[in-house]
Amino acid sequence: MGRDARGRRPVALAMTSLRLGPGREFDLIRQILEQDARIRIASRVTGRPSPGGRVLSGPGGDCAVIAGRTIAISVDASVEDVHFRRAWITPQQIGYRAAAAALSDLAAVAASPIGLLVTLAVPASDVPDFALAIMAGVSEAADAAGASLLGGDVSRSTGPALIDVTVTGEPHGEITRGGATYGDELWVTGTLGASAVAVREWMAGIEPSPEAVQAFTRPVPRIAEARWLAGRGVITAAIDLSDGLAGDARHLAAASAVRILLEAETIPIAAVVRTAARDDAGALALAIGGGEDHELCFAAPPDAVARLAPEFEKTFGVRLSRVGRVVEGEGVAIIGSDGIEQKLDVVGYNHFANE
Amino acid sequence: MGRDARGRRPVALAMTSLRLGPGREFDLIRQILEQDARIRIASRVTGRPSPGGRVLSGPGGDCAVIAGRTIAISVDASVEDVHFRRAWITPQQIGYRAAAAALSDLAAVAASPIGLLVTLAVPASDVPDFALAIMAGVSEAADAAGASLLGGDVSRSTGPALIDVTVTGEPHGEITRGGATYGDELWVTGTLGASAVAVREWMAGIEPSPEAVQAFTRPVPRIAEARWLAGRGVITAAIDLSDGLAGDARHLAAASAVRILLEAETIPIAAVVRTAARDDAGALALAIGGGEDHELCFAAPPDAVARLAPEFEKTFGVRLSRVGRVVEGEGVAIIGSDGIEQKLDVVGYNHFANE
Repeated sequence: MGRDARGRRPVALAMTSLRLGPGREFDLIRQILEQDARIRIASRVTGRPSPGGRVLSGPGGDCAVIAGRTIAISVDASVEDVHFRRAWITPQQIGYRAAAAALSDLAAVAASPIGLLVTLAVPASDVPDFALAIMAGVSEAADAAGASLLGGDVSRSTGPALIDVTVTGEPHGEITRGGATYGDELWVTGTLGASAVAVREWMAGIEPSPEAVQAFTRPVPRIAEARWLAGRGVITAAIDLSDGLAGDARHLAAASAVRILLEAETIPIAAVVRTAARDDAGALALAIGGGEDHELCFAAPPDAVARLAPEFEKTFGVRLSRVGRVVEGEGVAIIGSDGIEQKLDVVGYNHFANE
Repeated sequence: MGRDARGRRPVALAMTSLRLGPGREFDLIRQILEQDARIRIASRVTGRPSPGGRVLSGPGGDCAVIAGRTIAISVDASVEDVHFRRAWITPQQIGYRAAAAALSDLAAVAASPIGLLVTLAVPASDVPDFALAIMAGVSEAADAAGASLLGGDVSRSTGPALIDVTVTGEPHGEITRGGATYGDELWVTGTLGASAVAVREWMAGIEPSPEAVQAFTRPVPRIAEARWLAGRGVITAAIDLSDGLAGDARHLAAASAVRILLEAETIPIAAVVRTAARDDAGALALAIGGGEDHELCFAAPPDAVARLAPEFEKTFGVRLSRVGRVVEGEGVAIIGSDGIEQKLDVVGYNHFANE
C-alpha cells in the first residue's frame, strides 16, 4: 500500500482499498467493493441515474449515512431452495434478481433509488468465488438502477445461501397501497406469468425457454416508469407484483379498504405463458397467481391513464394494461368476459403453506 | 372485522389489524406486529426515547418512509449455528440479541434510533411459535432503544434460522471510524470478554454463569452513552465492539490511517472472564479477542475524557476505561506493563476461517 510523504495513503487508493483490518471476512468485503467499483466503471454510460450527493458515507463503517432526505426503505430476502436453486441459475443471476426484486419495492412508492445494503450468508466453501459472483450480480442490478452499495454484512451459513437486500430511495410524494378509491381503475405494467413458467418448468425437470429464464433472472424494477406516472399525478395507490396479481391486489384492496374486480380478458398474459399453459384458464392462473413478475400495479382515477398510455409505451417500450376497477366492498374477484364472477382459487406464493 | 356506517374500518382497529391480504405468511406478519404493539404498550414508561414524528409510514407497505433527516443505516445478521445455537438460548433471547447487536452499530455514529426492518428466515415448523418468540425479543430490544419496527420480510428456510436486522437512526454530527489522530487516547465503555466466556463454555458443554449468559443474550447498545459523549465533543472516531477489541481497533486504525497501542493492564476485563480463564494471558485473550461485547470503543483528544468520566459513570452506571493511545504508523499492538510490545495473536472472530 503506497503512502505519501506524510504517511497517508493517497486518496485514489483509499477509494478502492477499503480501510478495514485483516481477516478472510474483510478480504471478502474488500473484494466485493472493488468488484462493485469495476462493474460501475465498466458500465458507465451517459444519463444513468446517480445517487449524487445524497450518500454522506458508504460502506466500511458501522453505518452508512444518507443526507437529509425523506427516505423510503424496504428489505427483501432471497433464500436458496425457496426463492431459487443453484441448479437453475448462475450465482450472478442469483444476485441480480435478489437486488432487482428488492429495488422493485422502491417502484411501489415511486422512489428514486439511493443505495442498498446487502447481507450475504453462504457456506464457507462459497467464499470467495460463489459469494463474489452473487455480489457481481447485485452490483450490476444496483448500478442499472442508480443505487450505491451502502453497506452490508457477510456471514457463514451452515445451510442454504441467503441474500437479504435493504434498499433506500427518495419517494415521490406520498404514494402507498392505501390510496385507492371507488371508481379508480387498476393498471399493470408489462406482461405477467413468465417468471412463474420458468419455476414450473425447472420443477418439472424441463429447461425453460430463454424468455421465461430472462423474466425470472432479470426482472426490471419499474422505477423510472413509476416516477414518470407519479410525476403526472395519476397514481392513487401502488404495489410491486411479487406475490402475483391476485395476491397483491388483495393487499392493495385491504390497505385501501376497497374491493377490486379484475377483468380476466384484460390481464396481459406473457406470450410464453400461453405456450406453456394447457388452456386459457391455466394461462390466467399462472399470470395472476405466479408471482415474481415485479411489474408495477397501480390504481388511477377513471380515464387518467388511457390518454397517457401511448406516450408511456413509446418512452419505455413497456405495455400498460387496464386490468380492473375499484368498487365498494373488500377482497378481490375476477370477472369473465360474460361479466360473471369466476372462482378465484389462486392465492399467490405462500412461504408457509403446509408442505 | 368491524366497520363503521360508511364501510370503513374504525381507526383504532386499523392500527392493530394490519391491512394485508389473507395467507399464512401474512398471518405471521400480522401476529408479529400485534405482538410488537402489545410489548410496547406493556413497557411504556415515562422518559423512554421515541422515534416521534420521523416515521411517515411503517410496516405493511412496500417501503417504510422516514421524514427528511440525515439517516445512518446499518445491517447485522444472526445465523443459527454460527452466531447462536437453539440449545443455548431461548428464541426470545435470539431475537433480543440480534436486534441489540444491530442497534449497537448506531452507537458507533452516536445516532438516535429511528426504526428497524427485520428479515426472518425460518423452517416452516417454526411458524408461528418460534418465529413469534424471536420477534418478541426483537420488539423488546427495539422498544428499549426507542426504535420502531418499520418493516421486514419473512421467508421459509430449508436450513438454519436467520435474523437480519437493518437499523436506521439520526446521527450526531459526522462521527466515523476514520477520525482518530496521533496523540488521541482510546477508550472503551463497560467490561469485555463475558460474552466470549458464555460461548466458550457452551461449546465445552458447560452451562455458563448467569453473568456470562446475560452478556451474550442482552448486550446493551451504548447509544445513550455515545450521544452523551458526542454531545460533549470528545469523540474523534468510534466503533462498536463486535469482533473483539483487537480486531475492531484494527478497523479503526485502518480507517484513520494510524497505529493503535493497546495497554494490556488497562483493559477492563469482565470479572467472569478472570474466573473462567486459566491465567492472566488467557483472560486478556478472551477480553480482546472474544467479540460480541457491543461496547463502544472510541478515540478522544488527550485528557478530554478523564475529566468527564466520573459524571459519565454516575449517569450510566457504566465503566469508562482508557485502554490505549493513537500513534503514527499502522495496525495495532499490545503493550505489557513493562512497556514491551506483546505478540498479538488474537484476531477476533473469523466467519470464514478454515474449518
